[in-house]
Amino acid sequence: MDHAEWVKKDLRTLAESLGFRYTPPNEIEDRLAKVRTAMKANEIEALWVVEKMDYYYLSGTAQDGFLFVPAEGAPLLVVKRELERARIESPLKQVVGFRSLRELPGVIQSHWGRLPKNIGIELDLLPVRDYLKYQELFPGMRFKDSSSMLRDVRKIKSPFEIGLMKMSGEIGRKVYEEAGRLLKEGMTESEFGGLLEAVAKKHGHEGLLRVRSLNYEAYSWHVLSGLSGGIVSQSDSPMGGLGLSPAFPVGASRRAMRGHEPILLDFGICYHGYQTDRTRMYSIGRMDQKFIDAYEACREIHNAILEAIRPGRDCEELFTMTLPLAEKLGYKDSYLGPPGLQTRFIGHGIGLELNEFPFLAQGQSYPLEAGMTLAVEPKIVFPGEGAVGIEDTVVVTRDGFDMLTPYDQSIFEV
Amino acid sequence: MDHAEWVKKDLRTLAESLGFRYTPPNEIEDRLAKVRTAMKANEIEALWVVEKMDYYYLSGTAQDGFLFVPAEGAPLLVVKRELERARIESPLKQVVGFRSLRELPGVIQSHWGRLPKNIGIELDLLPVRDYLKYQELFPGMRFKDSSSMLRDVRKIKSPFEIGLMKMSGEIGRKVYEEAGRLLKEGMTESEFGGLLEAVAKKHGHEGLLRVRSLNYEAYSWHVLSGLSGGIVSQSDSPMGGLGLSPAFPVGASRRAMRGHEPILLDFGICYHGYQTDRTRMYSIGRMDQKFIDAYEACREIHNAILEAIRPGRDCEELFTMTLPLAEKLGYKDSYLGPPGLQTRFIGHGIGLELNEFPFLAQGQSYPLEAGMTLAVEPKIVFPGEGAVGIEDTVVVTRDGFDMLTPYDQSIFEV
Repeated sequence: MDHAEWVKKDLRTLAESLGFRYTPPNEIEDRLAKVRTAMKANEIEALWVVEKMDYYYLSGTAQDGFLFVPAEGAPLLVVKRELERARIESPLKQVVGFRSLRELPGVIQSHWGRLPKNIGIELDLLPVRDYLKYQELFPGMRFKDSSSMLRDVRKIKSPFEIGLMKMSGEIGRKVYEEAGRLLKEGMTESEFGGLLEAVAKKHGHEGLLRVRSLNYEAYSWHVLSGLSGGIVSQSDSPMGGLGLSPAFPVGASRRAMRGHEPILLDFGICYHGYQTDRTRMYSIGRMDQKFIDAYEACREIHNAILEAIRPGRDCEELFTMTLPLAEKLGYKDSYLGPPGLQTRFIGHGIGLELNEFPFLAQGQSYPLEAGMTLAVEPKIVFPGEGAVGIEDTVVVTRDGFDMLTPYDQSIFEV
Repeated sequence: MDHAEWVKKDLRTLAESLGFRYTPPNEIEDRLAKVRTAMKANEIEALWVVEKMDYYYLSGTAQDGFLFVPAEGAPLLVVKRELERARIESPLKQVVGFRSLRELPGVIQSHWGRLPKNIGIELDLLPVRDYLKYQELFPGMRFKDSSSMLRDVRKIKSPFEIGLMKMSGEIGRKVYEEAGRLLKEGMTESEFGGLLEAVAKKHGHEGLLRVRSLNYEAYSWHVLSGLSGGIVSQSDSPMGGLGLSPAFPVGASRRAMRGHEPILLDFGICYHGYQTDRTRMYSIGRMDQKFIDAYEACREIHNAILEAIRPGRDCEELFTMTLPLAEKLGYKDSYLGPPGLQTRFIGHGIGLELNEFPFLAQGQSYPLEAGMTLAVEPKIVFPGEGAVGIEDTVVVTRDGFDMLTPYDQSIFEV
């Protein structure tokens, strides 16, 4: 059978019967309208979208390729390998194939009538080698950094996106429910993480957590027991854990989990590309009182932030307001990391990527807006002993927030 | 307890008791010697290593930072967050912290005495925004692309690295053994993939498979049953599968596996950063004869390539020699993908990344060398029906190859 014919005839029906939700045409139109408004404000004549989540957001497909979005005129999706599948996935009208970068100027010219004088491109991630190729292909063209602009548009989620994030939170809830049944004394952190990964995948977790970064990698199996929780590592996070090797020095390790110690489970979920983040505490037998008290402090800080969330609140101020509270509760030196390694953020935007706008962090003074989605995660770290924390993902509403990761906030003692 | 003190005193002992194998000092010295020889040949005065697997390879640590390697003089590792941990992980003598990129010229100058006139940096991945910052920080410096040079050095594996890859292959063997016990009719591909992920993590799989690319993502759960195997997707691979959503349109899907159809399992493993790739076929009840025959053809092609592997053989020729063989066996139009989407490679280098040198592919005319590690993967695709294939990872030896993924090559019928 011819592959293209089969794809055209059967793929969409098959995919939808197996749970695929394609981005609706009006959703793509709304996103493009927002991007075009931003382009005009930034005097960008056209966008050349190169990063996978950026072009998935604007086209509905993650097939390998590029998206050309002129401020005036129809967008053009150029696809490297699976053209017919991209045509099924994207509601865009102009979807064409290409084999070599050299064809691109001609393809743009023939569809849009000319080449733009300036073009926006994501310079926060575009490799230099590709940039030099584009400068050769498009002599005289001015390249502008469009990454902040695209991240700004993406930070406000639509009801369609929030619906997918709720599903992601719901998959996570099943993982956390099952966690209490799977946790056993003597099991290693990594084995526990793997079992939870199996539960998550059974319920639709896509497995990868995407981060907008050259080197920063995310993963679901962030299981930190006892002193593992006190180990800081590469990521800008209060604790990193030991990990499995010098090549992957974060997250779950081969450490066997023991009774009465804090077991922190920070398991991210991805559904249709949309992530939610959630942290809860577990213990085998009653957790030592020191950690129970510290966890209560995390909950108090967590709830203080959540109560403050509404449009207009300043993101930096939401971080700084927690510092005196942590001090008052007695955790000045262990709040968000050990002294010298304390992080300066208490929350991060989340969606198709784990590090979206906004950041509730030092130096991030801008207002919350309705439709922003963010993870709030106060944590307390005792080096050589352990860590506790709580985390939920919420969406900012007109007058507060909606919880995307609802679940009991008690310590789960098994 | 002070975090830095705890790390210095306890972390290495703890990590080694939990299976960490740190890169030995002489291994790092050998790698640096090879890199310096290449630098001299390329007239590069110093390297600024930015990509995580490149600096892990040369320093022994994956803590967030950069590595400065002068052609003459001691290397300098600059670490962003967890300095004490990097000092434990890396045998390098000069390991210092930094807080802001602005400090870097001063740090280099104070340790090396001056700034280099030209510097090699991985332009295949370095984001343009970082590049522009470096141009500001180091006015007048010439930046040369060092990525191919580093990939060339990394393509020849040491006995230490091959040992880690053998361990990776051994973890994979346990996954494939368990696969036959876990596979059940009606189970979805994704559920099966998740269960295998749990097995793999129990035995030490690190979970992530790294690829040197802006957008290309790898993952372990490549389970393709029946017609899923006939679906091409984004990656430059004979088949991609349906995946779970338009955001992750590759690999295992929610399709329930049925009797008598081919179930292709291509499950990559990562151990201490080192990957191995392996593909085997499963079926529930006897697989339809068409697929059994096609799989036999894959085995014949696979063995023909393996028999030809030895130092000096041309990599492109190893690919092209399989084309008449596939045609003779009756699979001209389905070998390595459906017509129009047939890939032009039959093998790829593998190690810390999934797309290392060498490539057994069209346009890749250079000789195999002893110490290269590569995955060989003939596959045959029938759109709308299914796919079969076999894959193993081998190391080129003085007079042939050693298998890094030994395992029965029969179809596993459950």
